[in-house]
Amino acid sequence: MRPVLSNAGRPATIEITAINQDGQAVPVPIAGENPLTIYLDNRELVTLMTLGQSPEALVIGYLRNQRLVARIDDLLAVQVDWETGACAVKTACPIEDIEARTAHRTVTTGCGQGTVFGNLMEDIDQLRLPAAARLDEATLYGMLDVVRKHETIYKAAGAVHGCALFRGTDLLYFVEDVGRHNAVDAIAGQMWLDGVAGDDKIFYTTGRLTSEMVIKAAQMGIPFLVSRSGLTQMGYDIARRAGITMIGRSQGRHYLLFTGAERFRRAAASAS
Amino acid sequence: MRPVLSNAGRPATIEITAINQDGQAVPVPIAGENPLTIYLDNRELVTLMTLGQSPEALVIGYLRNQRLVARIDDLLAVQVDWETGACAVKTACPIEDIEARTAHRTVTTGCGQGTVFGNLMEDIDQLRLPAAARLDEATLYGMLDVVRKHETIYKAAGAVHGCALFRGTDLLYFVEDVGRHNAVDAIAGQMWLDGVAGDDKIFYTTGRLTSEMVIKAAQMGIPFLVSRSGLTQMGYDIARRAGITMIGRSQGRHYLLFTGAERFRRAAASAS
Repeated sequence: MRPVLSNAGRPATIEITAINQDGQAVPVPIAGENPLTIYLDNRELVTLMTLGQSPEALVIGYLRNQRLVARIDDLLAVQVDWETGACAVKTACPIEDIEARTAHRTVTTGCGQGTVFGNLMEDIDQLRLPAAARLDEATLYGMLDVVRKHETIYKAAGAVHGCALFRGTDLLYFVEDVGRHNAVDAIAGQMWLDGVAGDDKIFYTTGRLTSEMVIKAAQMGIPFLVSRSGLTQMGYDIARRAGITMIGRSQGRHYLLFTGAERFRRAAASAS
Repeated sequence: MRPVLSNAGRPATIEITAINQDGQAVPVPIAGENPLTIYLDNRELVTLMTLGQSPEALVIGYLRNQRLVARIDDLLAVQVDWETGACAVKTACPIEDIEARTAHRTVTTGCGQGTVFGNLMEDIDQLRLPAAARLDEATLYGMLDVVRKHETIYKAAGAVHGCALFRGTDLLYFVEDVGRHNAVDAIAGQMWLDGVAGDDKIFYTTGRLTSEMVIKAAQMGIPFLVSRSGLTQMGYDIARRAGITMIGRSQGRHYLLFTGAERFRRAAASAS
């Protein structure tokens, strides 16, 4: 049963006026940014800064990726009220030791959320990503074409990061946010709401392949992680440990395959 | 008196091997990324993920920008040990209510640190940035030229953000880090160590102009904030409130002046 949800998406951009190098006053669209404080069973948990396009999915994905909620069925209601900047979450089984579970702060590298409650690394060795999943070069290029053609807030306003979930070259979800990890979490939330599994999917991000990005993709059970950007050292180390197939600097007909080469198939012509 | 400091800078990049679109194994330099846990008077405060080029300045600037230490003179020692990933900070007057002061978590938008302890916004209205400071267009263009020519880790490895402090077109500091806010904080720390004031300086960042970026620049007393990137809504709102002169999308001979136009002087020729 789906939780009771509000439907409180916000407009993506607002317009301000700037002065350009020619001394002209020009309209500039900028990405919206709104504080949203999560109250988990009436207890203040955290404040996220978000574009706010799909705040309910964001909060659900945040709780999922921080492992504060184990199943979508544990959520009874997720209700966003922008007047107070609050999201009230009601669960079927309130967490007893919430203080203990959120006491350890790690300020992580990535854009956006940046705070990992608890030690997500503890479980990384327990994860098993599907070994038989395959991604071929033509599919990768097809995906990159879909991303390139997609209308985005980034093209209009900049200052946002985008994430997408693909099945082959089919774009299932595309989310942008001022916080990159918000975009990841919103997709994780939407996957839970729609009962979508990760095992035959490809996760695409415009952002860097940092440790949390890899951990979150692996937690969602997704074997393929593709980025337009580069990677950090911990992103690389964790990708190897998690056994994820990670591809970076991918744009047009270029890419670098960093880890998990056994799941990737180059085109026959260029492989000869 | 300067605190006792270790001198534990780390190498900026490591090299891994990736497979490119032609099936070739190629060496790829990637940015180093190391966890560094701050122990403030023997109490664990936070773990930062950092490139680690100037970890002592980073920790000092972090404590400054989170307003956990009021003056550089309050710091007796800042000692980094990478074997344990720990930075031991000894102060002249240990903070009594550290738990209370770090209890409120806001997960902010920007890359990197992302956690603002307490409510930095409370003090934004008390800040007074120098009204008489001026920046002219030729100086802005000169600064951008210096940044463009500067040798960077970004050019080699990507996946890092850079920050710089200028006096006119003189580059005083340039710091890059996997976490953008680490770069800001390292500059704030270096300014404290060197007794450098912000009032006639220009702060440059490669990253987006988010709320924390503006708050931190204003806290450092710097009236000018320049970025290659765009801005978010809260960055804009806070810049207006703080009365900072903020310029974005600046590269080559292009820029957008967003706020604080009264401190900026366009070139006479193009202003006619």
